[in-house]
Amino acid sequence: MAVLSEPTLAVLRSSYDVVLLDVGDTLVAEAEPGTPTAHLVTEPLPGVLETLRQLRGHVRLGAVTNTAVMREADVRSLLDVVGVDDLLEVVVTSTDVGVAKPDARPLLVALERLGIDPARALYVGDRDTDRTAALSAGASFTATDRGLDDALVRAADAVGGPCAAALARVRTPDDRAIAAARARHDTLTKPPGALGRLEDLGVLLAGIAGRCPPPVPSAPAVAVFAADHGVVASGVTPWPQAVTAQMVANFAAGGAAINAIARQVGATVRVVDVGVAGDERSPDGVDQRRVRAGTADLAVGPAMSVNEARAALDVGAAVAADLVAAGHDLLVTGDMGIGNTTASAALTAVLTGRAAAAVTGRGTGIDDAMLTRKTAVVETAAGRASGLLDPVSVLAEVGGLEIGALAGFVIGGVAARVPVVVDGVIALAGLLCAEALAPGIRQSVVAGHRSTEPGASAALEHLRITPVLDLAMRLGEGTGACLAVPVVQAAARVLAEMATFDEAAVGGNA
Amino acid sequence: MAVLSEPTLAVLRSSYDVVLLDVGDTLVAEAEPGTPTAHLVTEPLPGVLETLRQLRGHVRLGAVTNTAVMREADVRSLLDVVGVDDLLEVVVTSTDVGVAKPDARPLLVALERLGIDPARALYVGDRDTDRTAALSAGASFTATDRGLDDALVRAADAVGGPCAAALARVRTPDDRAIAAARARHDTLTKPPGALGRLEDLGVLLAGIAGRCPPPVPSAPAVAVFAADHGVVASGVTPWPQAVTAQMVANFAAGGAAINAIARQVGATVRVVDVGVAGDERSPDGVDQRRVRAGTADLAVGPAMSVNEARAALDVGAAVAADLVAAGHDLLVTGDMGIGNTTASAALTAVLTGRAAAAVTGRGTGIDDAMLTRKTAVVETAAGRASGLLDPVSVLAEVGGLEIGALAGFVIGGVAARVPVVVDGVIALAGLLCAEALAPGIRQSVVAGHRSTEPGASAALEHLRITPVLDLAMRLGEGTGACLAVPVVQAAARVLAEMATFDEAAVGGNA
Repeated sequence: MAVLSEPTLAVLRSSYDVVLLDVGDTLVAEAEPGTPTAHLVTEPLPGVLETLRQLRGHVRLGAVTNTAVMREADVRSLLDVVGVDDLLEVVVTSTDVGVAKPDARPLLVALERLGIDPARALYVGDRDTDRTAALSAGASFTATDRGLDDALVRAADAVGGPCAAALARVRTPDDRAIAAARARHDTLTKPPGALGRLEDLGVLLAGIAGRCPPPVPSAPAVAVFAADHGVVASGVTPWPQAVTAQMVANFAAGGAAINAIARQVGATVRVVDVGVAGDERSPDGVDQRRVRAGTADLAVGPAMSVNEARAALDVGAAVAADLVAAGHDLLVTGDMGIGNTTASAALTAVLTGRAAAAVTGRGTGIDDAMLTRKTAVVETAAGRASGLLDPVSVLAEVGGLEIGALAGFVIGGVAARVPVVVDGVIALAGLLCAEALAPGIRQSVVAGHRSTEPGASAALEHLRITPVLDLAMRLGEGTGACLAVPVVQAAARVLAEMATFDEAAVGGNA
Repeated sequence: MAVLSEPTLAVLRSSYDVVLLDVGDTLVAEAEPGTPTAHLVTEPLPGVLETLRQLRGHVRLGAVTNTAVMREADVRSLLDVVGVDDLLEVVVTSTDVGVAKPDARPLLVALERLGIDPARALYVGDRDTDRTAALSAGASFTATDRGLDDALVRAADAVGGPCAAALARVRTPDDRAIAAARARHDTLTKPPGALGRLEDLGVLLAGIAGRCPPPVPSAPAVAVFAADHGVVASGVTPWPQAVTAQMVANFAAGGAAINAIARQVGATVRVVDVGVAGDERSPDGVDQRRVRAGTADLAVGPAMSVNEARAALDVGAAVAADLVAAGHDLLVTGDMGIGNTTASAALTAVLTGRAAAAVTGRGTGIDDAMLTRKTAVVETAAGRASGLLDPVSVLAEVGGLEIGALAGFVIGGVAARVPVVVDGVIALAGLLCAEALAPGIRQSVVAGHRSTEPGASAALEHLRITPVLDLAMRLGEGTGACLAVPVVQAAARVLAEMATFDEAAVGGNA
């Protein structure tokens, strides 16, 4: 079973060239002080072998142990018995250099043998003395108090920013909780399966939370990420760019559709300026996280730099983490950005492999001539981006700041194990990015509704997810997803609150 | 424009043989006392001509006026000028018998000429003296203080019981409110039509309420009508009949799916025993309105008598009126009854003209052999009922007590001008009955969801209504409709609360 996710491994790989491991209580249980070497019979700590096997190939591995009694050959012999030795490129013990701990020298010896700069080394140990040794050697340190895999995930978090930290925590739904939820549904006072997709949703919620019954979400929040798009200069929409900022003010004042619908379902609205055009700040009440003041025109070149795309991802992941930390237990994606159906169509074309014409729609309502122009823009941009292998580069080339934030927001929500309800075509473009960054993350989200935009159905089909609602909506802002929130809550509630046949004495003749 | 509904006319027709009308301030504006006959120039009161033309053919018509100065010929001449005379079979004035009012004699003279028993006569006047005259003649009376049509609707209410009273108040959605809601939607801060079917729903709610914006429903109630079905003796379900009563207890204890879902959407659950089998009362907390203890087996004969079917309709209409009187502003249909998909299928076959095989499904989940038997039962029963012209007779022959109550509940809710959200296949069979009793009522209800039962899709297609949700549910109890409630509320809320482009200063360059 894989314990480290691909994103965690990616962060470790890009941050470190070697992971050096303490032996006692990191790789194996610590022996009683003074135990004769010949009497040392031990086993690797649970999960250690799997974790090391996963790490191998991504970073180099070594063991560094402070011991007064064992030499390298003794340690190797011990580790060989438990099956770890062949995974390690170098083993250094403090007796090699004749000192007791804490001391940086065994680490420096190991790094010198490997030819690695201490700044590119991570030391994993179980004691404060290990930390002191690592830091004085100029290496990074992470503690194994909750196991080796946990230590590595936290190490990845520490270097990668909010989105990388979240990526490292993304998990597929928990199989045991899923099985428990399916079994529980068959005991509840209704014919098996009679609640149809509401049962499937409840099972998914159990998988996301990792327990059955899943918690009933009671504090939903919708984050509306707003940004502008340079592509409006290419004539893809009849709406002036200023409408983005005007709608941000409308959100802040509570007058937009998402405000009315969020009030109905008891959801908090967090408005995030991730890239509105112009020099003016967004009004009070708006979360100010502008990465840049609108993208460049993706019809003629990259929408933004790779670093800006990463920053947008980080905004989304940070907002998700903030909302969860504030007690929100269900997240809804929202968006606003004049021109963003063009960027979404380009991303969707690249990430689903579909033709521009199949994913480009009328957005807010455009005529045939404008649709033809928009489709041509999407085709050109998608063609430019289709050779790029890195999802962040694709996002930078043809995406949008709010779309990047949406991808990060999805990743952040899934990492926090709360249900994320995804809105329409813009959010689904964000989800496609998230799926490219964290393959399988689509299994841990709820598609709120089916937008009428063709790109939405293309993304849903590509991701193989079925939306909760189909109300022929195409507004964005999170409106469709927000309407699905009570259904999601009800799905959890039936699992949590319905009586079983036994409890209610239902089923036989009275 | 028709001002009296078909159900009102039906009640008047079945209750009265004649409607006698006062002249002054009932048919025409009252003349100043002492005006010479030759100077009387007048016009019929607004709507009177239309109402009389509607009444003709349903009941006989006459005028009875207490006047000291005019004889029949004078009155006829006056009424001829305004176009009313030819609608009246008899005209009697008090001068014919030489007295001033109040007096019963002109009424009795008119009835004698027509050969009609006073008990079958309705007198319509504008004064207490008219009431005194009518009652002393042994006739019924209704006052025109709010117009002739209103007087007739109230007269129908007074004689017909809760369902007849409700039928008389059923109206199609208000065209002006509908037009106002459509126009308002185009001013709100979103692209026109971008909220898709949520906009259509809001427009319907305006039509139902007769105003724009429509009120936002804040106190929904689901009525779960429970009854048993004799047809379980014919082997159409694997569930024992006792499960109905057991589930009623489960509803009362709050442990069923509808309880959990209603809690989620803030709806009150009213459980109504309209016909549970057995001698035992339903538990405390259940509304006791048992018409009979389960129907007879519709496979071999009528499920119930016509009077029992009427009583079931009245239970539903009375519960709707009760809930609205208690402040509930949105009604949801719910049902429970082992065997009720068989009765629903039979009703649906008769009322949609479809074959038994096209409307019979697996209900709670039955095998092929049982489905074959069930379909044969539906075919036989539907064949027996298909010759019946009166919807109440069809309901009696092949329906169920809870299905009749559901029809009455829909009628009661529409009469009260509150939104009624209709659940799955059982509720739709009830709606088909309601539509047969009040053609066009389907335009004033919301279909909550599409059940997987084939009869549900058949009914939806026949009624030409599109459900809000499609979650592959088939439980009944009102579960699917209840999940649609927040969407209905949100549809009203966006019309009520969203800012317009002007209000929010959205749309131009800033």
